Amino acid sequence: MEEPKTPYALNSKKVAEATKYWLERRGVKIEEIAELVMLLQKKYYPNLTMEECIHNVERVLSKREVQNAVLTGIQLDILCEQNLLIPELQDMIKYDESLYGVDEILAFSIVNVYGSIGFTNYGYVDKLKPGVLERLNDKSLGPVNTYLDDIVGAVAAAASSRIAHRKQAEREQARGEDSVDTLAEKGTSL
Amino acid sequence: MEEPKTPYALNSKKVAEATKYWLERRGVKIEEIAELVMLLQKKYYPNLTMEECIHNVERVLSKREVQNAVLTGIQLDILCEQNLLIPELQDMIKYDESLYGVDEILAFSIVNVYGSIGFTNYGYVDKLKPGVLERLNDKSLGPVNTYLDDIVGAVAAAASSRIAHRKQAEREQARGEDSVDTLAEKGTSL
Amino acid sequence: MEEPKTPYALNSKKVAEATKYWLERRGVKIEEIAELVMLLQKKYYPNLTMEECIHNVERVLSKREVQNAVLTGIQLDILCEQNLLIPELQDMIKYDESLYGVDEILAFSIVNVYGSIGFTNYGYVDKLKPGVLERLNDKSLGPVNTYLDDIVGAVAAAASSRIAHRKQAEREQARGEDSVDTLAEKGTSL
Amino acid sequence: MEEPKTPYALNSKKVAEATKYWLERRGVKIEEIAELVMLLQKKYYPNLTMEECIHNVERVLSKREVQNAVLTGIQLDILCEQNLLIPELQDMIKYDESLYGVDEILAFSIVNVYGSIGFTNYGYVDKLKPGVLERLNDKSLGPVNTYLDDIVGAVAAAASSRIAHRKQAEREQARGEDSVDTLAEKGTSL
Repeated sequence: MEEPKTPYALNSKKVAEATKYWLERRGVKIEEIAELVMLLQKKYYPNLTMEECIHNVERVLSKREVQNAVLTGIQLDILCEQNLLIPELQDMIKYDESLYGVDEILAFSIVNVYGSIGFTNYGYVDKLKPGVLERLNDKSLGPVNTYLDDIVGAVAAAASSRIAHRKQAEREQARGEDSVDTLAEKGTSL
Repeated sequence: MEEPKTPYALNSKKVAEATKYWLERRGVKIEEIAELVMLLQKKYYPNLTMEECIHNVERVLSKREVQNAVLTGIQLDILCEQNLLIPELQDMIKYDESLYGVDEILAFSIVNVYGSIGFTNYGYVDKLKPGVLERLNDKSLGPVNTYLDDIVGAVAAAASSRIAHRKQAEREQARGEDSVDTLAEKGTSL
Repeated sequence: MEEPKTPYALNSKKVAEATKYWLERRGVKIEEIAELVMLLQKKYYPNLTMEECIHNVERVLSKREVQNAVLTGIQLDILCEQNLLIPELQDMIKYDESLYGVDEILAFSIVNVYGSIGFTNYGYVDKLKPGVLERLNDKSLGPVNTYLDDIVGAVAAAASSRIAHRKQAEREQARGEDSVDTLAEKGTSL
Repeated sequence: MEEPKTPYALNSKKVAEATKYWLERRGVKIEEIAELVMLLQKKYYPNLTMEECIHNVERVLSKREVQNAVLTGIQLDILCEQNLLIPELQDMIKYDESLYGVDEILAFSIVNVYGSIGFTNYGYVDKLKPGVLERLNDKSLGPVNTYLDDIVGAVAAAASSRIAHRKQAEREQARGEDSVDTLAEKGTSL
C-alpha cells in the first residue's frame, strides 16, 4: 500500500461530490428521489412543489453521515457486481437475501439524521417500492442494487422528515410565535 | 419514598405477566397482533397458520427488551389520559404530535430484537394502520394510544422477522443441511 | 379530559423552554454538561474553551429530537419518585435495574442526532460517570435519576460530535478548501 | 456475471463457518474476545470463568445478524487493504477517519441483538481499547482494521449483555421463582 505524498486530510467537498457522482452513475437522478418525497408528503402539504422536494433531497445529501452511508452502500453493490466479495457475502448481496439486513442498517443511519419520525416513511416506500425504487429493485435488469434501493428510499424518507420539521417552523412563524431566539435556531431545528 | 421491606430483586415472571395484563387491559388481544403478522407474511408463506402467528407473537412478548418497551409505552399513554404529564409533553402525546418520535423509538427497540429485517414491515403497518391499528389510532374513541399503536405494530413486525428466521431454518433442515451444530444453534438463530 | 379552548398546535418555543427549565429543576446546569464535553474533547482540541462547550451543548438542546427525549426521560424519573408507575416498571426504574434499557434507548436517540461518531463517547462517560454524572448516579441522594444520568451523558456525547464536525469545517476553511457551496452547507453539515 | 448452476439458497452453516474463518484469518481469536468480556464482567460476577466467556462469545457469533455485520465489516477492511475502494471511501476507511461512522453503525447492529444494555459496554471498550483492541487499532502494523476493531468490541459487549441476562435467569431459578413457563422461555429470554 503506497503512502500518499501529502498526509491524509479529509476533504469534505470531494466526499460530497463523490456522493452525487456515484448516485448519478448508478442511475439515480435527484429528481427521482424528489418524486418519492412528493408521493410521501403531498397529502400533508398540498402546495408542496417539486422544487422544494429537490431542495430537501439536496440538503439531506449534504450531510456527512448520509454521504458515508451512500458511498459505502454503492461500493458494496459495485464490488458484488464485480464478483469481488467473500463468496458467502457475495451471494447474500447478489440475491438480496431477505435475512441479510446490513442494507437496512445503512439506510437507517440515513433516516436517523432527521430523527425518528422518518422510520415509518422509510418502511412504507421500502415495502411498496414506488417510482424509481421499482426499477432499482428489478433483479432482471443486471446491476446489483441491493444497497442502493434501500438508500434511495432512506434519503426520500429523511427529506420528508426535513420537510415536516421546516413546515412546522413556517407555521409557527406565520402565527408570530417565532422569537429572535427561535429564528436563530431555525437553521438547525433538526 | 418508603423502602420495601425486602430488598429489591427483579422478578422476571412478574414483568412478563404485567406485560400481558396491560396489553389486554388496553384492549389489545394477542390474536389481533397475530392477524397483523398473518397479513404481513401470508404471501411469503401460504401455509402459515394463525397458531404459528400467535406462537411467534408470544415468543416476542417473552423477551425482556420487548416487555420493557411495552410497559414504558403503555405507562406514558395512561399517564397522559390521566393528565399527569408536564404540559408540553402532555400535549405532544395526547395529540400524537407528528414531530414527537419517542413512540417510534420505543417501537424500534422492539423490532431490533429480531434484527434489521423487521424495519420495513414495521414502517409498512405503521403507515397503513391495518386491523387493530386502525382502531388504536382512532383519536375519537377516547383512550390515548399514541405509544400503543406503534408498539403493537412493532411486535407484529418482530414476530414476522422471527418467522422469517425460523422458516429458513426449516428449509435448511428439509434440505438436510442441518448439522448437529446448527440444530443446537436453532433455538437462538436470532 | 377537558379539551383546550384553542385547537392544539405545537409551540416549539414552549417545548424548548420546558426542556431547559426541567433540566435545571432536576439539578443539572448547562455548565456541568459542558464540563463533560471538555473532558471528552480537550485532548483532541487543546484550545477548546468552556464557552465553545457551552455553546455546543445549547445547540444540541435546541434540537427537537433531543428535547423530546429529555422531557420524556425526566418525566419518567419524576413519576417514579411520585410512586405513580405500574409496580413492575416502578421498581425497575427506581432501582435502575441493569436489565432495563429504555433509558439507554432514549439516550441513544439523542446521540444519534449528530451521527454514529458519538456512540463511543456516550458509552465511555456512561461507564465512568465523571463529574455531574457521579452525583446524578448516586442512589443515596434521594431523587430518581435513572433516565437523567443517561440523558446528560448523551447530550455531552452529542455536543462532542457536533464539535468534531465543526472543527473539521474550520480546518478545511483554513486550508482554503471551502467553496461558496460548502460555506452555504456549513450550517447543516450535520 | 455468470449465474450459478444451482439456484441460490442461503446456507446458514456456510455463513457461520465463514464468519469464524474470517475472524481467525484477520488475527482475532475467540479467546481474545472472551478476555474483553471477562474484563467487562468480572467485577459484577467474581466467579465468572473463561469457559463461560468463550461460550457466550460463541453464542453471539452464532446469530445471523452478527454474522452479517462481521462479514461485511471485514470485507470492507480487506478491500481497503487491496486499494479497491472508491478513492474518497478508500481514504476514510484507510485512515479510520473520525467523521466516518459506518463502522460504528455495523458494530451497533451487533450490540443491539442483545438489547440496549450493551451500549455502554461497547462505548467503553471502544474508547479504552484494552487487550486485542489495542493491537487491532495500531495503525503502524499494516492491516486495515477500521471495521474489525469496532466489531470485536461489539461482540464482546453483546456477550456481556448475554451473560447479564443469563445470570439473572440463574438467580431467579435459585430463588425458586422459575415457573414451568419461564423455564420454557429461558432459551430465548433475550
